[in-house]
Amino acid sequence: MVDKQYLITPGPTPIPPEVQTAMAAPLIHHRSPVFRALLADTVSGLQYVYQTANDVLVFAGSGTAAMESAVSNMTSPGDRVLVASAGNFGERWLQLARAYELDVVQVEQPWGERLDAAAVGEQASGCRVVYVTHSETSTGVVHDVRAIADAVRPSGAVLVVDAVSSLGGVELATDEWGVDVVVAGSQKALMTPPGLAFASVSERAWELAAAARAPRYALDWGRTRTAQEKGDTPFTPPISLLFGLRAAVALIAERGLAAGFAHNRRLARAAREGVKALGLTLFSPDDASSAMVTAFQMPDGVDGQQVYARLRDRFGIVLAGGQGPLRGRIVRIGHMGYMNEFDIITALSGLELALRGFGYRPAAAGAGAARALEIFAEEGGG
Amino acid sequence: MVDKQYLITPGPTPIPPEVQTAMAAPLIHHRSPVFRALLADTVSGLQYVYQTANDVLVFAGSGTAAMESAVSNMTSPGDRVLVASAGNFGERWLQLARAYELDVVQVEQPWGERLDAAAVGEQASGCRVVYVTHSETSTGVVHDVRAIADAVRPSGAVLVVDAVSSLGGVELATDEWGVDVVVAGSQKALMTPPGLAFASVSERAWELAAAARAPRYALDWGRTRTAQEKGDTPFTPPISLLFGLRAAVALIAERGLAAGFAHNRRLARAAREGVKALGLTLFSPDDASSAMVTAFQMPDGVDGQQVYARLRDRFGIVLAGGQGPLRGRIVRIGHMGYMNEFDIITALSGLELALRGFGYRPAAAGAGAARALEIFAEEGGG
Repeated sequence: MVDKQYLITPGPTPIPPEVQTAMAAPLIHHRSPVFRALLADTVSGLQYVYQTANDVLVFAGSGTAAMESAVSNMTSPGDRVLVASAGNFGERWLQLARAYELDVVQVEQPWGERLDAAAVGEQASGCRVVYVTHSETSTGVVHDVRAIADAVRPSGAVLVVDAVSSLGGVELATDEWGVDVVVAGSQKALMTPPGLAFASVSERAWELAAAARAPRYALDWGRTRTAQEKGDTPFTPPISLLFGLRAAVALIAERGLAAGFAHNRRLARAAREGVKALGLTLFSPDDASSAMVTAFQMPDGVDGQQVYARLRDRFGIVLAGGQGPLRGRIVRIGHMGYMNEFDIITALSGLELALRGFGYRPAAAGAGAARALEIFAEEGGG
Repeated sequence: MVDKQYLITPGPTPIPPEVQTAMAAPLIHHRSPVFRALLADTVSGLQYVYQTANDVLVFAGSGTAAMESAVSNMTSPGDRVLVASAGNFGERWLQLARAYELDVVQVEQPWGERLDAAAVGEQASGCRVVYVTHSETSTGVVHDVRAIADAVRPSGAVLVVDAVSSLGGVELATDEWGVDVVVAGSQKALMTPPGLAFASVSERAWELAAAARAPRYALDWGRTRTAQEKGDTPFTPPISLLFGLRAAVALIAERGLAAGFAHNRRLARAAREGVKALGLTLFSPDDASSAMVTAFQMPDGVDGQQVYARLRDRFGIVLAGGQGPLRGRIVRIGHMGYMNEFDIITALSGLELALRGFGYRPAAAGAGAARALEIFAEEGGG
């Protein structure tokens, strides 16, 4: 029992056996027909998941590296940009924009709230680029990117969305919604280990890239596109991770995006209802949009970090604590990627056991798991 | 036969089963005691391979990303730096320095020659940083970094060495030789798939980093050091690759660095002698320092790219062709990482068969393999 691990956290997420097996293939050389097929399959699989006909560029790096590429490739020092933030990952855009000496207009919402699309739209005029987050994993909020895109459009600013923890997990219709740049990483809903990052780039974004003077090299978009057009990458790519990602996007396509989104909404609803049945108060919004992460407050006098540590050390269940000002105040269940009904039951069951260790008692034993089972039965699982 | 692959190329190199198995472990969360142990083991293993007590920073990215970090973290636009180049990877420093708008002094040698340490030393005065390559994989030359370090020292410039394809394969005594920054990647002599990159940073280099104004974020040294001091990484790291790398550096330590270097010199000598016995002319130097890559010229009228393709497509043997101006003129055998005597025999045997396909005949059938066997027997293998 003691070594059995359950990763139910907002990334990295568990790896399906098909992906793990694919990564066990012997390495190939990256200048070869076999690699060109690997890259082509992976990029076209990503375009399906992205719902885009735009270029999808593939980088070695963390999701943050892909975010940085969307700053360094589209700006010059002093450019005015807008950052809309309501949590830890929104603030990362702010840090990136400052690192590149941009003139930043910030539209903030308190952590845990949704961005105000109208306010973002109002401030966007005169800005070259607007940077926003899709799934804010620090709070569990999924922002309304469609409304933000509509609100920003009249300004003519290029819209960049951090979808690191949402891509493939909740609806993000890149082309239909008119999102210019979407950055993502391999280790969340894409069910692959960390180390690969992506950016989709629209024609409008390419125009900005042509004029941008910020220095960049390994993450240069133009260099990457030129190589990818020849089935190549400019530098040695993480080949084993690409083997895994190809298998992962094939799994996503096999189930179909819409079915995957519905699956995630079902898991998220069960998590929310289960948490409430345990007598806890949700921190993330109690609605269907919050489908990647369920965040909830701790009972009075209980430290979320201690609950997190007890879950991990006694039960092998890795959830997530709070970040920044939320540290100790909330705990988060990540239900993205290779997740199923019984992962939610496990999370809720473990949570109850851990809370009991700090003297907290739910209304009835197993109240959280029982409520989740009810939801699953109701939604066609019984 | 047709699907059996032999990767005998200057990276990526084959992965030992111990490393492959380690990477198959289920993912863990990167904010956990288990991860802290993984990172600590890996960094201390790297310090052994680097022969350094300096910080060794770990990044998600290609070797080029680590090179870029040594530009963006130590310079401000307009700074004077020296780039010493004699091949494709030396010229990458030049491109990086130009991308960051540095005032570049270049010391060049023709491709295939060794850098002139005295010339580098003479030009170094007044330069903030000196960028050089250790193993120039495009030509097979291993530059004399020790002599360069001695020559540069009086100038006070900080010395940065690209050891992407040499670290762990040939002698590089970071601290003893006084090399300030050594950048490397996982996919060469370190026997791990591509996707991890490293930089060792001396106190003198940290001083430059404190003053440097070039923008950087994901590859910021200070942020990385602060996180690593807490057993952490600033962004989600390539966890599965770290599992592999820990196993790889343990294998290197188990054999001992000196024994590994001797092994590589033996393989390289056999490759050089075998190539000459086939009647071919070496392009890389015919001496013991050239221990990572053996490059050789094609016979008149034979196109190296066609030989490379025939080896790959008919025999499953991946060597390397020539880069840049050497394309078609040379072929390269990479004997770094998880390589043994019989890989050299395979490379020489395949090379003979492929050349015969273009009408070239060696003095005697099997002349290359036979000569290599002689060397192995002579050096204690028989």
